[in-house]
Amino acid sequence: MTREPGRRDPAGTPPGRGFGAELGFGRLPAVLVVDLILGFTRADSPLSSDLDAEVAATRLLLDRARAAALPIAFTTTIYGPDLREGGLFVRKVPALGVLRRGSWTVELDPRLGRLPGETLIEKRYASAFFGTALAPELTVLGVDTLVVCGATTSGCVRATVVDALQHGFRPIVPRECVGDRAHAAHEANLADIAAKYGDVLPLATVLERLPGPGAAG
Amino acid sequence: MTREPGRRDPAGTPPGRGFGAELGFGRLPAVLVVDLILGFTRADSPLSSDLDAEVAATRLLLDRARAAALPIAFTTTIYGPDLREGGLFVRKVPALGVLRRGSWTVELDPRLGRLPGETLIEKRYASAFFGTALAPELTVLGVDTLVVCGATTSGCVRATVVDALQHGFRPIVPRECVGDRAHAAHEANLADIAAKYGDVLPLATVLERLPGPGAAG
Amino acid sequence: MTREPGRRDPAGTPPGRGFGAELGFGRLPAVLVVDLILGFTRADSPLSSDLDAEVAATRLLLDRARAAALPIAFTTTIYGPDLREGGLFVRKVPALGVLRRGSWTVELDPRLGRLPGETLIEKRYASAFFGTALAPELTVLGVDTLVVCGATTSGCVRATVVDALQHGFRPIVPRECVGDRAHAAHEANLADIAAKYGDVLPLATVLERLPGPGAAG
Amino acid sequence: MTREPGRRDPAGTPPGRGFGAELGFGRLPAVLVVDLILGFTRADSPLSSDLDAEVAATRLLLDRARAAALPIAFTTTIYGPDLREGGLFVRKVPALGVLRRGSWTVELDPRLGRLPGETLIEKRYASAFFGTALAPELTVLGVDTLVVCGATTSGCVRATVVDALQHGFRPIVPRECVGDRAHAAHEANLADIAAKYGDVLPLATVLERLPGPGAAG
Repeated sequence: MTREPGRRDPAGTPPGRGFGAELGFGRLPAVLVVDLILGFTRADSPLSSDLDAEVAATRLLLDRARAAALPIAFTTTIYGPDLREGGLFVRKVPALGVLRRGSWTVELDPRLGRLPGETLIEKRYASAFFGTALAPELTVLGVDTLVVCGATTSGCVRATVVDALQHGFRPIVPRECVGDRAHAAHEANLADIAAKYGDVLPLATVLERLPGPGAAG
Repeated sequence: MTREPGRRDPAGTPPGRGFGAELGFGRLPAVLVVDLILGFTRADSPLSSDLDAEVAATRLLLDRARAAALPIAFTTTIYGPDLREGGLFVRKVPALGVLRRGSWTVELDPRLGRLPGETLIEKRYASAFFGTALAPELTVLGVDTLVVCGATTSGCVRATVVDALQHGFRPIVPRECVGDRAHAAHEANLADIAAKYGDVLPLATVLERLPGPGAAG
Repeated sequence: MTREPGRRDPAGTPPGRGFGAELGFGRLPAVLVVDLILGFTRADSPLSSDLDAEVAATRLLLDRARAAALPIAFTTTIYGPDLREGGLFVRKVPALGVLRRGSWTVELDPRLGRLPGETLIEKRYASAFFGTALAPELTVLGVDTLVVCGATTSGCVRATVVDALQHGFRPIVPRECVGDRAHAAHEANLADIAAKYGDVLPLATVLERLPGPGAAG
Repeated sequence: MTREPGRRDPAGTPPGRGFGAELGFGRLPAVLVVDLILGFTRADSPLSSDLDAEVAATRLLLDRARAAALPIAFTTTIYGPDLREGGLFVRKVPALGVLRRGSWTVELDPRLGRLPGETLIEKRYASAFFGTALAPELTVLGVDTLVVCGATTSGCVRATVVDALQHGFRPIVPRECVGDRAHAAHEANLADIAAKYGDVLPLATVLERLPGPGAAG
């Protein structure tokens, strides 16, 4: 068979094939911070990464979103004592077993400065939408765009972005606000997201496009 | 901060941290073939890859599953004339717009030899579970393990595997039965799947572990 | 135990207990017509009811929604030849088995005058949201209110209304546009809906509150 | 139009039309107790009913299920301080606003004797499946049959039974174990369930058909 141009490209998803169109911002964005909990951000956890820069970048974004009165939500991954709630995910990734109710590992990183009225979603699986009431909460608020921050790019961030798109919320990923244990996995997943699921943008661009103070209803 | 061993590993998801445990086969596996439709497998489609080897490997697996009377399902991605059903996915990936009802692009590759009684799921999004009745069909059949084949590894296969795990079906990916336009994306996604979502195995191992002829129900 | 006022009221859900608040219309309503297919509306079907008045009332509503360019969707319940797609629902209600692909029973009642561009959702279960891509389609369109018509009040209409509320779309039920095989079941389900899940209104009120011609984006 | 036999029957869902077939028990039943929390069972709650008999009947069933080591789960409906998690449900039913985290109203009735290892699902909506990880938990356990108890028959029980059927779990409703504020609504909903969604049986029959001590796993 003659080789077609653009097929089996070893370097990544081929450009110019109708992938990666910009979704853009809609009418009302919300910010979702995925699993920036101490179990992921503190050095003495078996699940930790060095996410100091990502936490700081996310805090910057959050403060802008707070000024504009945009909806804000956080997730934590959390299980009861017998881990039955974790289903197959905890069987595949036994390291998740430290994320028990009552442990410091499941608490939000305090550097994010969560305020009363900012939603906290308890999830069991990779996607923040799976087995949670996140989608209806966004729908009731009139949200149509979801700025996704957090960790890890190759895990819960990717799964959440795919589900956001599927549920009908435009996913926006500020590059500096998502992180991973492994650099190669981080970059590979950002490439997949940019090609198929959401807009990957520099934080500065996201900040420019967010509504200004007092803009939200 | 002192650097912890295993953090920020540039080479990939770090081993030995409680990731990538084997899920194994359960009581009743089913085979799910994701989007091996002509729009993905034929050279004259804008979405095509060279998937001849993956189609042949999948056919081998299907014939073994047929001999053992295991449940088999296929997906196609398909939209009506105005693409409204495709939501944000078609906006992000305009190339999907060729997958219209009535077009040859949405037909299963005939080399798979689909038989009457083998389920065909029409999906709109990346995951075969999203917006479809796949999960309840598997539950009613008593399936607990899902062998996932098809294309692309970095797109619909990955999304389907994540959702299979979340829904409670053990995902098994026979390495030779999944393919992608881009080799690097293929490998990166298999690594993520193996670390967090499913067992990635050589086809020969999957064939060995499948129930023999007449084993099912 | 002393009997509390309002407990165990034999006549129905007690008033004045904080049930049945009005949801009202939001910014953008859509009209969803549930299962007004020939298998339910034609006298020679085993699933039929006399729904002539409900079809006529629904057509009136549809014509107003068309004039205002509101989103419109229809459902049909439809199964492949072996009914495996119908799962437990077809086992519990064997009468559904006539709703086979290719049969006249699954066609929309032509009196509704469906136009090109009006969505047709193929569903397998009672709720129009279950196993379909209805929710993301509404979200992408910016719909926040769902006017639900169709049959039967005690079956697919009730299940769809409960799910609409759960997904975050305000359910509005125009009383004249929903029908059932059994009058008592019809009334009991309207009472439950009005108390807990959606606004049950006379058609005239719904027509008054719909946006006027050209109102939609 | 000549009137067809069985159409528009004023007395209820007509018999003999292929409705209400028995689903029966499968291989592994679980027991799900819906919202038998103090906010529903204690006389001094605005949501209360006299559910003493239903609680006692459910306890009897639970003790048999415990002896047979069957999976057991409970739900509570619970909201954070600003009720945003409750979406449209709390707007439609303002009485639900008492079900706040930290209040006695959201605690399981102690007469049920919940043991460690018995799952507690926090839900926001009527169905125990909506926005929760109940379905995957049942799937991972191999459950195929769900015995549903609790309150109210016309609310969360009905919604849960419909969703159980849709997800592929055979719903069984022991008549003595479900209750409602209103007798008429209770009976109407049991009739709908029996016709379309689940098997409604006397508790004695359910007890007979449950596996005996030590039968499970």
